[in-house]
Parts: sequence; C-alpha cells; structure tokens
Amino acid sequence: MYYEPKIKEECGVFGIFGRKNAAQLAYFGLHSLQHRGQESAGIVTVDEGQFYLHKEMGLVTSVFTETNLAGLIGDRAIGHVRYSTTGSSNVLNAQPLLVNSGKGTLSLAHNGNLINSLAIREYLESEGSIFHTTLDTEVVAHLIARSRERDMEKSLIDALNQIKGAFSIVMLTEEALYGIRDPHGIRPLALGKIADDYVLASETIALDIVGAEYIRDVEPGEMVVITGDGLRSVRYADRQCSFCVFEFIYFARPDSNIAGLNVHLARMEMGKMLAREITDPVDIVVPVPDSGISAAQGFAEEKGIPLQWGLIKNRYVGRTFISPEPEIRDLKVRLKLSPIYEIVAGKRVLLIDDSIVRGTTSKRIIKMLREKGAKEVHFAVSSPPVSYPCFYGLDTSNRGELIAAGMNRAEICKYIGADSLTYLSQAGMLKAVEKSDLGFCTACFDGNYPIGEGMGKFSLEEGRKSCAR
Amino acid sequence: MYYEPKIKEECGVFGIFGRKNAAQLAYFGLHSLQHRGQESAGIVTVDEGQFYLHKEMGLVTSVFTETNLAGLIGDRAIGHVRYSTTGSSNVLNAQPLLVNSGKGTLSLAHNGNLINSLAIREYLESEGSIFHTTLDTEVVAHLIARSRERDMEKSLIDALNQIKGAFSIVMLTEEALYGIRDPHGIRPLALGKIADDYVLASETIALDIVGAEYIRDVEPGEMVVITGDGLRSVRYADRQCSFCVFEFIYFARPDSNIAGLNVHLARMEMGKMLAREITDPVDIVVPVPDSGISAAQGFAEEKGIPLQWGLIKNRYVGRTFISPEPEIRDLKVRLKLSPIYEIVAGKRVLLIDDSIVRGTTSKRIIKMLREKGAKEVHFAVSSPPVSYPCFYGLDTSNRGELIAAGMNRAEICKYIGADSLTYLSQAGMLKAVEKSDLGFCTACFDGNYPIGEGMGKFSLEEGRKSCAR
Amino acid sequence: MYYEPKIKEECGVFGIFGRKNAAQLAYFGLHSLQHRGQESAGIVTVDEGQFYLHKEMGLVTSVFTETNLAGLIGDRAIGHVRYSTTGSSNVLNAQPLLVNSGKGTLSLAHNGNLINSLAIREYLESEGSIFHTTLDTEVVAHLIARSRERDMEKSLIDALNQIKGAFSIVMLTEEALYGIRDPHGIRPLALGKIADDYVLASETIALDIVGAEYIRDVEPGEMVVITGDGLRSVRYADRQCSFCVFEFIYFARPDSNIAGLNVHLARMEMGKMLAREITDPVDIVVPVPDSGISAAQGFAEEKGIPLQWGLIKNRYVGRTFISPEPEIRDLKVRLKLSPIYEIVAGKRVLLIDDSIVRGTTSKRIIKMLREKGAKEVHFAVSSPPVSYPCFYGLDTSNRGELIAAGMNRAEICKYIGADSLTYLSQAGMLKAVEKSDLGFCTACFDGNYPIGEGMGKFSLEEGRKSCAR
Amino acid sequence: MYYEPKIKEECGVFGIFGRKNAAQLAYFGLHSLQHRGQESAGIVTVDEGQFYLHKEMGLVTSVFTETNLAGLIGDRAIGHVRYSTTGSSNVLNAQPLLVNSGKGTLSLAHNGNLINSLAIREYLESEGSIFHTTLDTEVVAHLIARSRERDMEKSLIDALNQIKGAFSIVMLTEEALYGIRDPHGIRPLALGKIADDYVLASETIALDIVGAEYIRDVEPGEMVVITGDGLRSVRYADRQCSFCVFEFIYFARPDSNIAGLNVHLARMEMGKMLAREITDPVDIVVPVPDSGISAAQGFAEEKGIPLQWGLIKNRYVGRTFISPEPEIRDLKVRLKLSPIYEIVAGKRVLLIDDSIVRGTTSKRIIKMLREKGAKEVHFAVSSPPVSYPCFYGLDTSNRGELIAAGMNRAEICKYIGADSLTYLSQAGMLKAVEKSDLGFCTACFDGNYPIGEGMGKFSLEEGRKSCAR
Repeated sequence: MYYEPKIKEECGVFGIFGRKNAAQLAYFGLHSLQHRGQESAGIVTVDEGQFYLHKEMGLVTSVFTETNLAGLIGDRAIGHVRYSTTGSSNVLNAQPLLVNSGKGTLSLAHNGNLINSLAIREYLESEGSIFHTTLDTEVVAHLIARSRERDMEKSLIDALNQIKGAFSIVMLTEEALYGIRDPHGIRPLALGKIADDYVLASETIALDIVGAEYIRDVEPGEMVVITGDGLRSVRYADRQCSFCVFEFIYFARPDSNIAGLNVHLARMEMGKMLAREITDPVDIVVPVPDSGISAAQGFAEEKGIPLQWGLIKNRYVGRTFISPEPEIRDLKVRLKLSPIYEIVAGKRVLLIDDSIVRGTTSKRIIKMLREKGAKEVHFAVSSPPVSYPCFYGLDTSNRGELIAAGMNRAEICKYIGADSLTYLSQAGMLKAVEKSDLGFCTACFDGNYPIGEGMGKFSLEEGRKSCAR
Repeated sequence: MYYEPKIKEECGVFGIFGRKNAAQLAYFGLHSLQHRGQESAGIVTVDEGQFYLHKEMGLVTSVFTETNLAGLIGDRAIGHVRYSTTGSSNVLNAQPLLVNSGKGTLSLAHNGNLINSLAIREYLESEGSIFHTTLDTEVVAHLIARSRERDMEKSLIDALNQIKGAFSIVMLTEEALYGIRDPHGIRPLALGKIADDYVLASETIALDIVGAEYIRDVEPGEMVVITGDGLRSVRYADRQCSFCVFEFIYFARPDSNIAGLNVHLARMEMGKMLAREITDPVDIVVPVPDSGISAAQGFAEEKGIPLQWGLIKNRYVGRTFISPEPEIRDLKVRLKLSPIYEIVAGKRVLLIDDSIVRGTTSKRIIKMLREKGAKEVHFAVSSPPVSYPCFYGLDTSNRGELIAAGMNRAEICKYIGADSLTYLSQAGMLKAVEKSDLGFCTACFDGNYPIGEGMGKFSLEEGRKSCAR
Repeated sequence: MYYEPKIKEECGVFGIFGRKNAAQLAYFGLHSLQHRGQESAGIVTVDEGQFYLHKEMGLVTSVFTETNLAGLIGDRAIGHVRYSTTGSSNVLNAQPLLVNSGKGTLSLAHNGNLINSLAIREYLESEGSIFHTTLDTEVVAHLIARSRERDMEKSLIDALNQIKGAFSIVMLTEEALYGIRDPHGIRPLALGKIADDYVLASETIALDIVGAEYIRDVEPGEMVVITGDGLRSVRYADRQCSFCVFEFIYFARPDSNIAGLNVHLARMEMGKMLAREITDPVDIVVPVPDSGISAAQGFAEEKGIPLQWGLIKNRYVGRTFISPEPEIRDLKVRLKLSPIYEIVAGKRVLLIDDSIVRGTTSKRIIKMLREKGAKEVHFAVSSPPVSYPCFYGLDTSNRGELIAAGMNRAEICKYIGADSLTYLSQAGMLKAVEKSDLGFCTACFDGNYPIGEGMGKFSLEEGRKSCAR
Repeated sequence: MYYEPKIKEECGVFGIFGRKNAAQLAYFGLHSLQHRGQESAGIVTVDEGQFYLHKEMGLVTSVFTETNLAGLIGDRAIGHVRYSTTGSSNVLNAQPLLVNSGKGTLSLAHNGNLINSLAIREYLESEGSIFHTTLDTEVVAHLIARSRERDMEKSLIDALNQIKGAFSIVMLTEEALYGIRDPHGIRPLALGKIADDYVLASETIALDIVGAEYIRDVEPGEMVVITGDGLRSVRYADRQCSFCVFEFIYFARPDSNIAGLNVHLARMEMGKMLAREITDPVDIVVPVPDSGISAAQGFAEEKGIPLQWGLIKNRYVGRTFISPEPEIRDLKVRLKLSPIYEIVAGKRVLLIDDSIVRGTTSKRIIKMLREKGAKEVHFAVSSPPVSYPCFYGLDTSNRGELIAAGMNRAEICKYIGADSLTYLSQAGMLKAVEKSDLGFCTACFDGNYPIGEGMGKFSLEEGRKSCAR
C-alpha cells in the first residue's frame, strides 16, 4: 500500500535561537555536519511569526546561495542534512518539515529512526490522516497536532510518549526552539552557547564552527526548551542510555567529542585494543584511508610497528562515468585508492579499517596490494563484525548486504583474500569508549536491540518492493 | 498564522485511463494546456498498485525528459500545469498531490479555487490535521481521508459536498480515474475518447492533440468514474450552471471549444458586438497581438473597416534583464510590441484588446502609436470593465490592481491617454456566447458572485502580508 | 582535410559607439535580432584599450545575465547572434571573434557568407597561418593582420578587396567602430543615431529598441568609420546592388524597414500580387501562422475574400520529446498548429504561406484541414519556388532538401496533397518590392548568382561528410 | 596591447595511441591528474582523419558525460587538465588546442611555461599572425605551421628549437602521437605501455589507472613519435636536466613516481632531513593535513617523536558562501581544518607543512592551536623558503604574494605567530631526492634560473593590469 519504502537514514540536525544571521550560522553548522548526509539540505527560520524555508537536493554548498540565505530572515533557525539510500529520494522527503496545525506552525528536523512509525501511520490513517512523505518526522507532526493537550509543549511530550525508536529532534515554533533526545539517547545531540544564546547540533564540531562553547549533551529522555527567557530542561521520560557505538566507530567526525570523549582518540583507543588482541607478527601497518587512519595510528603506537602510507586516496573522486565493460580490472577502487609499491613490496602488511560492510572494496584493495608485491596481507577491523541490521537510523539495515550476516570470520577472510582477518572483540571496543561513561547500543554486533525491532524489519521488505516516486 | 498566502491560481488538468504510454499522452496534453499555467508541471501514473510521480517548477518541456517520462509507467495518468502569482511558489505547492490515506493512495489535480478552504482548514486543524501546502487540493484529500464512508467513491462525494467554490478535479486511485466539476461548472472540463479509452482535459485542444474525439463536457455537479469497466456518471449535486465567461474572453485557447462553441469564433462575435456599439469613425482597426486578434477580426468584418497589423509582436521575449535605470522609455513594452509607422501614421487608429487589467501596458502602447504619428488612438475592449475580484480561480483577485475597480471609464481613458475608450456591454458579451447555451458567472464585471465570496477576500489580504516560503 | 563543414548561416549584428552602457544597449539590440540566430550570442566591449568578451551557446536572454553584462564595461560594443544548421556548432564558433594581431586587437562580427573563404584559407595555410574556427570572420581577421598596409583602415580595405561573397560586418578596435557591407549589398546593415552617437544593426527594429533614429542603410561597397570625431564614409568598392530578396520574403522582422520599405507592407504587397495571379474561386483565405499572415492579409484585401484564422499556432512549443513510435499521426505539426473545424469545414480553403522548403509541414497541414472537413484545400506561396541553393548566407544550401529543386509545380502539388498550388511569379515578387529602389539577388529562384558560386558548393559536400567537433 | 595576462599555469597532459576506447582511457587518466588542474578539461581524438574535440570549464567528472565521451571516437587521444590563477579563465583558453594548418590538422596539449612566448608572439604578429588565446600552445602551433620544413616531424623540431622555457607537450596528428619534453626536462612526462600500445602522462599514477606499465620518463630534449609502427625516439636537443624540485615537494601525487623515486617516500625523506636539522625539543609532531603528512611521517620516524592528528581536515569543503561580515573569526580556515583539544592542549607542538606561500593560513592555524591550549607552537617546513617567482609553469609567479620574498625567517616567524620557524636547508632538500639521480631547478629558492627569466617578468606586470575576457 505504501508507495515508498521506509528509508533508513542517518542525518544531521542543527538549531540556533537568538542570533542575528541565524540562517548563516545554520549554514555553517550544516556544512560541518555534511558527512552525516549528502543527499539534501534545508533550513527553516522564523521572524515575527512568519516562517521561511529553503530545502533542496544536494550538498549544503550547492543548496544554499547568497540569495536564498538572505531570504531566510530571523534570529532562530533549524537545519538538516539528509542521507538516504534509495532511488526514491526527492525533495518532498527533504527536511526540515514545515506544516500548519491547530497548535500553530511547526517545523521539525529529525535524526534517527522510529520503529513504530508504520503502526502509528496505519492508526492515523484509519483516523483520517493523510501522509505526504515517508518521513518519521511527519508522524511526529501528526501526533503533536492530534494531541488532546492544548499547549504546544504538552502536546509535544504527548507525541514523544507515543513514538518508539531513535530520535534526536530539533523543532522550531514561533516562540521556541526545542531539542529532544529519545529515552535511550541513541543518536547524539549536543548543546552549546554563544554569549547568552543557545545552539543545538548533532556533533560538537558544528558548535565549534559557529563559535559556540560546548555545554553538555542533551540527555536521553530530555527535552530542552529554548525561548527568549533562556533554557528550560524537561525530563519527559526515564533515562536508559544506549548510545549508538557506531557513532564512535565510524559515523562522527574525528574532531567531534561525544559525552566529552574525542572521537579520534576513541578510535585510536580501538586501534590500541586491537593491537593487544593481535599477536601474529607483521612488518608494517597500513590504514585504509581515511576511515582506518585513527585506529591504525593507535595500533601502531601500541605495537611499536611503523604506520606506513601504503595506500593513497585520490582527493578528487566525484561521480565517475565507467563504461559498461571497462577493460581495466577493479577500476572503481583504483580511482579512489592506489598502493605504493616501494612501501608494500616484500612486506607483511597489516591493513586496518574501521569496519567491513559488504567486503567488495576490501577484497579489491587486498588484490591491489598483492599485485604490488606485498608478501602477506592481513586485515584487521577496529570493531566487531556487523551481523545485525540497525533499526535506529544507520543504513546497515539490509541484512542481505552485510557480509558478516551470512559468513563467519574464516569465510570472510577467504572471500576478501586476506592471509588473516581479525575483528576487535566487543569487550575491547567497549573498553575503548568507557571513558565516555555512556551505556551503548551494540545491536548491530550482537542483536540485542534495546528498544526492540518493531515492525521495521517486515515492512522494510514490503517497502523496498514498491520503490517509486 | 498561515505561513503562506492563499494563492489564486488558474491551472490546467488532464487525465487518461487505459492507454499504454499514458504518461507520454499526458505530457502532450499538458503541453497543449501550457497557456493555463507556466509555473510548474506534474504527472502521476499508477501501475499494479504502485504510484509514480514527477513534478517540478518550470514549463512542461523542461520539467519532463525522455528519462523521467520513461519512469512514469502505467496505463493511467493525471497531470497538471499551474500558474501562481506570488514569489512563494515552490515545488511543494506543485500538483498533482500524491498522498497516502486509510482509503488508499490518492492523487489529485485541481483547477479552480475553493472559497471555504480556509474555514475547512481551520476546522481540520482544530481536529488535529496538519497541512503541508496551501493547495485547495490538500483540503479535498483531507476530507476524503476523514470521511466516515468506507468506500472511496462515497468518501469522495462526501468531500465534494463540503467544499464550496470552483473546482474541476481529476483524481487517480489504484482502480479508477475520476473527473469532477463543481455544481456551478465554473471551470471547464471536457471528456473525450480514443478507441474505448477515456480522456479528461481542461480544454478540447488537449483531446485533439492526443487523438481523442470530444464526447461532451463533464457537467456541473457531475462526477465521472472511469474504470476498466468503462465510464459511469454520478450526479453528486444539482446543476446550476455559472460558467466563467472569462474562459471565452481571454483564458482558453482559440482552437478550443467550450460546450460546442469555438473560442475564436466567440471572440470574433464579441468583436462584432463591439462594432455595433461603436459609432465614431476610425480609419483602421489594429489588434493588440495576440490577445486582441480574434475580436479585432470580428470587429473589422462587421464594420467593413480594414484590420491592419499596426503592432508587431516579438516572438522571442523571455525574461529580459533590464538595468534599474534604463535610458530608454517604455522599454519593457517595446521589447514585446512595436508599431509600424507606415500603417499608423496619420491614421485614426482603433486599438482592440480583450481586456484592460492594470492599464499600464495599454498606456504605453498608445504612447508608442502616437510617437509613430497616429492622428487619433481610440481603444476598444471586447469585454466589460473588470471591476470585481475573482474568487473562483482567476488571478484578478487583488482589487487594488484592477484599474476598473478604482476608476470610471472616463478616468481610465484619460489615464491610458486614449482619444476614446469603449468597453463591450455585458449584454453584448453574453449575446456573443449565447450559442453555448450555458449560464455564466459574470462576477468580475458585476459583483454577482454565484457561490458567494466566502472568506477569501479577508484572508487574502492577510495572506499577502505574510508571503514567504 | 577540414574537420568541420563550411557552415551556411544567417546571423544578426549590432554595433554602438559612444554610449554609456553600450553592452546593455547591445543586449537589447541583439534581443530584437534574435529571430536572425538562436544558436549563440555574444558581445564585445572596449574600455581604455581593454577588451571584454562574453559569448555562449543559447538565446540572448539566457546567455546574458545582470552579472556578465555588468562586466562588459565601456562605451562601445559590437554584438552577434548566430544560427547554424549542423551539430558541429559550439562556442568556439560563436561570434564576435576577438583576436590579437600586429595591427592591434580586433573584434569582428559577420553576417553573410564568403564564397572564396576556402580558397583563401588554403592559401593562408600554405603561408603558415593556422585556423581555430570555420568562421569566415577568421579569414577576414587573418587578411587584416597580414596586410602590408600599416594603418588599420587601409589594412581593412586591403582585406575587403580580397574577399568575395556576402558580408555585413561590424568591427571594433580600440579607436573605432566599423560598419561594412559587401559591394553587392546582399545582407542588410542599417545606420542609426541616438543624440550624437551612432548605432549599426542588421535591422531597423534594433535601432528602434535602443531609441535610435534610422539614418540610412550602409551602402553596398561602403565602409563607415565611427570614432570620437564622428562618422566618416569610405567607398572601398563600386556599388552593384543585389540585395537578398529573401530578407523581404521571410527573414527580416515585419516591423523592420529595409531601404525605407516596411517589411510587413512588402509582404502584404506580395500577397496582393499573388491575388492578381490567382483566379480560381475559394471561400476563405487562411494564413499559415505566423509566416503567411502578412501575405494573406494583402491577398484578402486585394481579393475581397475574408481572411480567416483557420489555423491556430501554439505559443508554447519548445523542444518537445516525442517517443520513437508515437501513436498519434502528425504529432510534430499538431503540437505547433491546429485547425478550427468551425472555420474550415465545408469550405474551399486557400492556404497562404511565404515559402515551401521541404514540403513536409505543408503536407501535414493540408491533411489536418481535410480531416476537419475542408472541401478543397488550395495552397498559394507568396514567393517563387526556391530551386537553387544560396551561397550568400541563407541556409537553403543543401539542394537535396529543397523540394522545388527536384520536383515541378504539379509534382509538389501532388506531394503536399493540395487541390492546387500557386507560386508568386518572380516578376510579381519584384514588383512588390520595387518601392525599395534596390537591385536584388534572386539566385535561389533563378540560379543567377551575382557573385558566382565560388568553391562553396563542392567543399560543402566534402565538409558535410566530416562533420565533427 | 595584450587583452589578457600571461598566465602562469600548472597542468596535466595525457596521450594514448592504438587503444580502442582511447577517450574513455584518457578520461580516467585525466581524472587521476585532476590535482594538476581543476579549471578546465579536454580530450581530442582522431578517427579516419577526422578530429573530435570536447573541452569545457570544470572538473573532469563534470566536463565529460557518457554522451560526450561516446562522441569522441577513435583509437588515439590526447587530454589536458588546466589550472589558471586569474579571473580571465574561460573555455577559449582550455586545452587541447585544435587547429587547421597547411601541415594538416594539429592538436596540442601543453604543461609548462615558455619564457620567450611574448617575444615570439610579437614577432609572429608583426608577420601577420593572429592570436585567439593567451596559450603558449598557440605559439607552438604557429611555429609548426610557419616552418619552412614540409614534413610534420621536421616542422615540429623546427618549432621546438625556437621556443625557450618549460614544456611537456603531447601532440596528436592524423598519423602520430608525439610526446616532447623541453631540453631541461623541467616538467615531468612519463611513458607507459599497455600490451603493445603506448601511453604518455604527466604522472605515473595516470599510467597505473589505465592499466599501463611504466617504461621510463621521456627524457629532456627528447621527442617520442608513436605511430602504427611503434615508438621512435628523436633527440632534438641536448639534455641538461633541471627538473622542478617542487613536483617532489608539493605538486605531484604521493602515489606517483618520478624518475623511479616515489613521491611520498621523497617527502618522508625531506621530513627526515628536517628532523636532523631541528634540535629543540617538542612533545608532538602534527602535520598540516594533507600537505604536511608525508614529511611529518618521516620527521616523526627519524626523531622518534609521535606523530599526532592534532588537526583534522573537513572532507567536504566546496565553495562556501561567507557573508561579508562574518562574526566568527578565522572562519575560512575553520571550515577546512579543526584542532583537537585533547591532543594539543598543554603540549609543545611542532606543526609540519610542505611550504608556506602567503603565510595567512599558517598564521590562523597557529592561532587556533593556541586557543585550544597548545603550550608552544613551532612550525617546520619541509622545503626552503620560496623567495623567487617561477617562470616555468608553477603559479608562484607573483612575487608580491610570496611571504619569503619580502621577509626573513625571523619576520615570518613573528608574522605567523610561531614560537620558532625552521625551513629545510636546500642541501637537505636535494639530499632527500638524490636517489632520483636528476639535476634540479631550484630557482624559486635561490634565483638560479636555468633557462633565464626571459621577458616573463616584465610582461607579467603589464599583463596583470589588463586582465579581462
């Protein structure tokens, strides 16, 4: 019945209240969150009760121009960058969402994924609601609008108590900027301050870029309400922290901090843990750039083996047109990465990366290294094998594509053609991030879903079939 | 409270059921309706329960490409071209609208304007609905979704009974194509047939272009339901025909027929009526191209005075950049129209146009003719003065811009600098279209609104102030 | 040997000297000459010895923006619009040409076609010159640069004495604007004045648009030199006027005057002449819009038969995507033109157009009219049959495509499916333009090439084969 | 007199002969050379005597599409990527150049800079030549065309003997692909082989990407002629190797080899040399990413001090719109680089970069590090100070912008705000690349111009003034 699949997405959100040029600052904030979503970008501002919206498909630098930024007037703004993985993506699914309701005009931007959104949609539709998008954000907007509470804040809490899953939400109304994290705190949301004004962002780097000082993370189950009178904290649900450990492993920028722990240092620590778990001797440690650099750095330091740049990344990749029958083997990987013969020839090489998803790239890299004369190629991953889909917002949802869902370590090792394959143990990984003092969601590694799988899995398959629009 | 103005729009709709390449035919249909809206265009198709949508800002020929048309699979389609008059236009307000509801997936395209949409919106919002757009179409979709009827057709009728105003709607569901005209039949909607398959279109020219034979107009208060079993007619309301006479005067293409009367011939007839109402002698009759050609032709024939091409229209206008302080007077009009000295010099010229809206262009044309040596310049209009705003879908809504709303004939004549100014009488105009056997809405001439003014007027002013998004 | 075909082109040129905002005026001038070339547009200005150029593929309104016009500083400018007929067109072949030479920096824009350019190219290449483009303009620039004269003006005359064919050239140097017409005056070039400053343009409409007063045409064999000291006329060759009569028939805008004769009136006159040559009775005269309107008007006046709008032109054509196998017959013509049943049904229709080139469109129009019930369809052409290619700049060069080159009148009549076919006699045509007091080139009608065919014909065939770049 | 400045440019060239899909391979080759020029890209192919060209402004991935690549037929191709430093860049100055001459059709692509091109231009202009571009390539084409030799190869040698400066040229004629390096071998040009077919490229990485094996570098003063009969080497001048050491320092990709020496390893070696020249103790070594990574790696290894990622580079920079008055200090640098507090706070940091050009970025980085708590910030550069402009193709030509041209080490240190500043000695630098067995041009460091400064310097200043088009 749904004309569009339920999209699993990773996104970045930003909010600011009380600063002149709010849109310009949101623009810089989104620019620094670009790695969290390259598909679409949008900003909503409000000025004297009037809302202004610009959103488009594309990167932040192409979506916003001097002209359209100038049109986004007002001293408060929210923004969003979005990544989706299906062909169905289009501007109707870009965020922030801006709707009118009996509670006033609402604008919402969302990072995460609800697991009961389909159930809620079906209920709402049976009650006469209509849906324009496949965004979870639209579900939240409906719930706010339909709440029996009269007050916006209470309506919002009402809505939050009905949704289940991962959500870090920024919401803008005429009077207030809201920052919300789900009770498990699965997705990040940091709070900062410039002078007396507040800023919200998925990562601290976005606070830095606009000159804001990091205050603290919004807590799981917390809602902050920012108005002209300052900030008020509302605990709308109990805290049971299950932060997505994958933010530390892969998703967040190395120059961001989460719960006070720097991401690059956490990754180095994972590399160090990995070093303790690997005993076989190798000559050189080579990171898969850029994703494996931090861990390889930690590994090399711990082990006292030199890190070497045996693989070089091309800084100009872009969308390359490759004819259907390219004569050149492994061209796609070659255009991105190339090995240096002088470094790898005759060596026992230990390649380090942060994860293996489908295994095809790893396989090609190993082949290239062998062609350049590497004596042995060992592969080490600074996280455990990803064997379970994520229902909380990371796009690892299609289990069929996860190599570790269908093969054991030995089989993967054989598939990618490595001499050995080592994954960091889950214990080692958790040890590496223990300084953050957070509880973690490790569902993609061990299948322990802190909030359940909801209806997501089933409907996902259904949705995929009907991928249109 | 509304972030966007209530937009008065004129549009074109198209629907087809049962033809292979339905999208390609819809594309040609919309192309021939392009004059009804140049702002955005869209097509929705359905194939095996799956809906496909493409809509964008721009002309039909730029919105659709070989590639995106190929993606619109299925043997049934609806399409829409839209014109709006404010800067706030964007793709979120493009049609057709495609939404999910408890009644199934719905796609709607609408020509006309509801006068009680604000009231319905407010009611629906108070009931917890949210609105993404400022389209009347969205109001209709909500009403269908909220209907207590279970059946789609009954839900639709339920919705139709609540809306008030002008609407010609095509709607596509998984099973059926619906064609609906409001009980006053204000906007046109024609029905045609190719072999055994049905086509709906705002004008007959769109039937011609796809090779369909004109059957009849959908009647006021009628809903046609087209399925695999053929066409069924449902009278959901009483007929009280008040067809918009402005379609004959200005909006429809001359090669379209309405209720069996050819539009070009109707305009010629208006020119003939005008000829009977003007007695002062002139030397030549000059049409303002292209809008005044048909009437001038009729005028000249009736009067036996030669029609002369004293004004030539540039076929390449486009959006011309004119620097803030152009040295050249009346440049904007000059780029579009130029007089021929040899024809007008020394002559008593009678200019004929179909209407005067703001009077600025007429004023400049008259000045140019005098500069080229015209001895006298008389101005005749083949319709009565437009003194009242239209609330049913034509963009003459801003009364402040209507010159005839604020000045009498003598004042307008003076303002535009003509030697005389004549408007066709309302009786003459109605006489010219009497062969159509229709009742007419003449509200813009005499203020007699057949369905009332609703809340449109007030909210419109409010809306204009808050023109954003 | 040549990588690109010799392109037969029709173009428009513009020049202005001494006016602030010269580029802005050139922009308006080119806009009004857009009908002479829609492929590319360009403007060159000069300010304090520094030249500024912008040229691109596309229409004037898309090529120039507020920003790039602002960059074209200076009080003197030349501009060009170009039409070419091959796929090889690209920005390297756009004009004006801007080159450095030992005589200083030169910028040239050219309308027309040289017949000895290949011969000159071969000579120049044998002398060590290199060619970047296939433009005749480049040949002229080389000749100027290579002249043994030291002075720019003498070098230019030297060059002009070597080239053969049709050329109306505007040339800009640091000190002067030059306007040149070939000794036969085949292409038009008009001279105008705004206050004390001079303007040159292919047609008088471009003078009108910038507010300039028409002075006279540049004469065949004349070069005007416009500097800060005013205008100087130099006769560089004898006058033997052979003006292209096709400018009157088809190419020029109806609101332009040539040699004092208005083009629309000349076309009406052709229609009148045609009326005298046709005796068979018909009921109505229908112009093929827009090309046949003027002649049909004259015809109807002369004959006393009513002109009727039996064919309506769609104002929104654009590039329409038509799938390889359209189900609808004659779709391409239908998208452009549609007949009105009420006007043509049961009538003996006389269709009037200015020319028939390949006959395919005429054929489809006649078929459409018959389908709409026309009793008889006669076709009259307000010029003689085009049986010979033009080597002087009109794109009628490929004789294989000219229907009249391979069929006689009866055969064409049969091919297009008319009940009768009449062409205006050559005598009638010349009579219609005799008020201009010009001599005419009628080569495309009678093969009498006033300047010879040169090498054009042969090389053309060669060139076509190797159409690349 | 020149309307455009003499542009100092760095570029990349590619050539291939005998491979099906030559254009597709050239496309991949240019893609891997993208770092050598991001302004424009072009490819010329030849097939059965017919030349095909596509060039445009922009990156390789945007300039070429499936469609235009498919149009570039033939089994031989040359390609070019270009970087220029002035606003005057436009497609007319893109390469390859394609011209017709008496010697046949020629296509040329050039990396480097001639120092006597202005003198030759003036001479050629005085002889009647015209220039369309400001490219040195055009000078070479003229000289070939004007040579008294009849044979293409001899004409080319004739031309090469007249030009002075740096040039690595690939040239394509109907019969042959030529690869040429100037007698001093200033710019690189490598030769490779796929099966029996030859490939030429500015860097070896472009050979790797198309699956070609590296054979050797084209030698200074050598011309290779590749035809259907294989490769022939012609020594057209004596070899006096003065290879641009800056290719090793900064310009070439780390995964390229030059004269058998890997660029990344050479840069590490420079870092090691630097380590030997610095004695003051620091706590951590931080590379300025990406340019300083290789040297910092060598430095850290040699010194036994840990390399730390104290600065993180944003992978999504793009063209960011920054409002005229940004409230945030150093925003431009912040958008690109951000420091990690946990790494730098309280530390004596040694920053390493490959060069300092204007000093502004270095200054801002140092300030950011201090704000993040660095105790001391020392700066080390893995090359000597660049005090002299380059006339051979690198854009360091404007001496006014070189900080080291106007300040001594102490002054620069103060300006950038470092606690100390160390440059690698020239001896150390040369020691680092001695394995290449090449002679080097070190003019930008010591002013010893191996081929002289020519007229470049003077005319450069003149040219800059008149920067237009």
